[in-house]
Amino acid sequence: MKPSLAIVKIGGNVIENEAELAHFLALFSRLSGPKILVHGGGKKATAIGERLGIASKLVNGRRITDHESLEVAIMVYAGLVNKNIVATLQSFSCNAIGLSGADADTIHARKRPVKDIDFGFVGDIEQVNPKAINTFLDAGLVPVFCALTHNGKGQLLNTNADTIASELAIALSATYNTTLYYCFEKEGVLRDVQKEDSVIKQIDETIYKQLLKEQLIAEGMLPKLENCFYALKNNVQKVCIGSTNMLQADHHLYTTITLS
Amino acid sequence: MKPSLAIVKIGGNVIENEAELAHFLALFSRLSGPKILVHGGGKKATAIGERLGIASKLVNGRRITDHESLEVAIMVYAGLVNKNIVATLQSFSCNAIGLSGADADTIHARKRPVKDIDFGFVGDIEQVNPKAINTFLDAGLVPVFCALTHNGKGQLLNTNADTIASELAIALSATYNTTLYYCFEKEGVLRDVQKEDSVIKQIDETIYKQLLKEQLIAEGMLPKLENCFYALKNNVQKVCIGSTNMLQADHHLYTTITLS
Repeated sequence: MKPSLAIVKIGGNVIENEAELAHFLALFSRLSGPKILVHGGGKKATAIGERLGIASKLVNGRRITDHESLEVAIMVYAGLVNKNIVATLQSFSCNAIGLSGADADTIHARKRPVKDIDFGFVGDIEQVNPKAINTFLDAGLVPVFCALTHNGKGQLLNTNADTIASELAIALSATYNTTLYYCFEKEGVLRDVQKEDSVIKQIDETIYKQLLKEQLIAEGMLPKLENCFYALKNNVQKVCIGSTNMLQADHHLYTTITLS
Repeated sequence: MKPSLAIVKIGGNVIENEAELAHFLALFSRLSGPKILVHGGGKKATAIGERLGIASKLVNGRRITDHESLEVAIMVYAGLVNKNIVATLQSFSCNAIGLSGADADTIHARKRPVKDIDFGFVGDIEQVNPKAINTFLDAGLVPVFCALTHNGKGQLLNTNADTIASELAIALSATYNTTLYYCFEKEGVLRDVQKEDSVIKQIDETIYKQLLKEQLIAEGMLPKLENCFYALKNNVQKVCIGSTNMLQADHHLYTTITLS
């Protein structure tokens, strides 16, 4: 039987709140067995960008990563956020190693092709290199990925952290039974976004289709769930969506997503 | 016989000049055998700090790393500079991995004790962990260290890049024949700082003592040379000081430092 691997993705809401982040990292460090953390950068990049006099660029309401915004993303994601997470995990005796997709050539991407909008230095993942990541896991290290990849030609690319987490999980499913945890600000997928206690505990494809038909999936949740089913169809064993408390053994309120 | 390992340190002057950095990285990527790169951050950190409205703090003419300056150092050294170097090396088929001393717990330091001056978040190296670094080298990876360490209690610390290079060389001398290369803006140690062509090609302890006696060692060079002899006395095989051209096989103008 393959060993288990937990891949945990945390969003901006966890990163922006220092106490919440410390609480999460303590929980994460106590997870037994091989594990990987993936994080975005949240509003810190926007705040630092503003202080540097770099305004967010939007085209048709979509964020554009120009050269300057990319530099801010590299500083904040790979620098400030990633290294502080690594240092904190080390203080919890969790042997973390911070990585972008350029480090050890772990994640190759290509600049998103221009159709209607040129998103700038945004990468769509082409290939995850499980060899290097397996070397780290075999050495007892805990990879901590920020939301940056590279194109192999010297260009770093801003890349969606949810997608990095799912692509890592898919690539590592050849050697591990992978479970993907998406931590966000709610306790799970809600039947009614107004009601925090309406968490749907289990979603499989049949239930998902039903929820879609009833139009009960909130707009922001739709790409997340599509991403989950894509991962499950590519050998990821289980996906869980919930708050950071989900990593506590005695916390049972979150959404589990499976194929059937 | 032990295999050879090259540890190359580049200073601010190389990092600040984009063309010079690209030229250096091309040379570095072509060095055969196991190798490690160590870099500082140069004036980029000061420039970004100024744009963020964070003034450099000096006490008695010495730079102080307060909380805000440390955040800038983390963003620039571990983020912007380190990741761009890694992505560029990857484009030269050099499988680089960017590291701070917190990553894989590679370099432990303690906050410099306060005597006359509190230097703030500045670290003096206590221990290099060769196990993790050997894992990377054995996997064919090329570690790229920025000038940051950690104290194991969650605190990152600004640390002199020259010292990081020499402590890495010392720690890895148990398994490798290490050569330490210090690249800077001159072609080597000069007999006369006004004359670029007065490079001293060979310095051993006897010559060093003579140069000290004749007061021919420039003030900025003194700690560098002390550092070199400290490394040599701790099993590092050879230290070379010169320009980035020193990495070219057909370039013979640089200073070699040996014990005898």
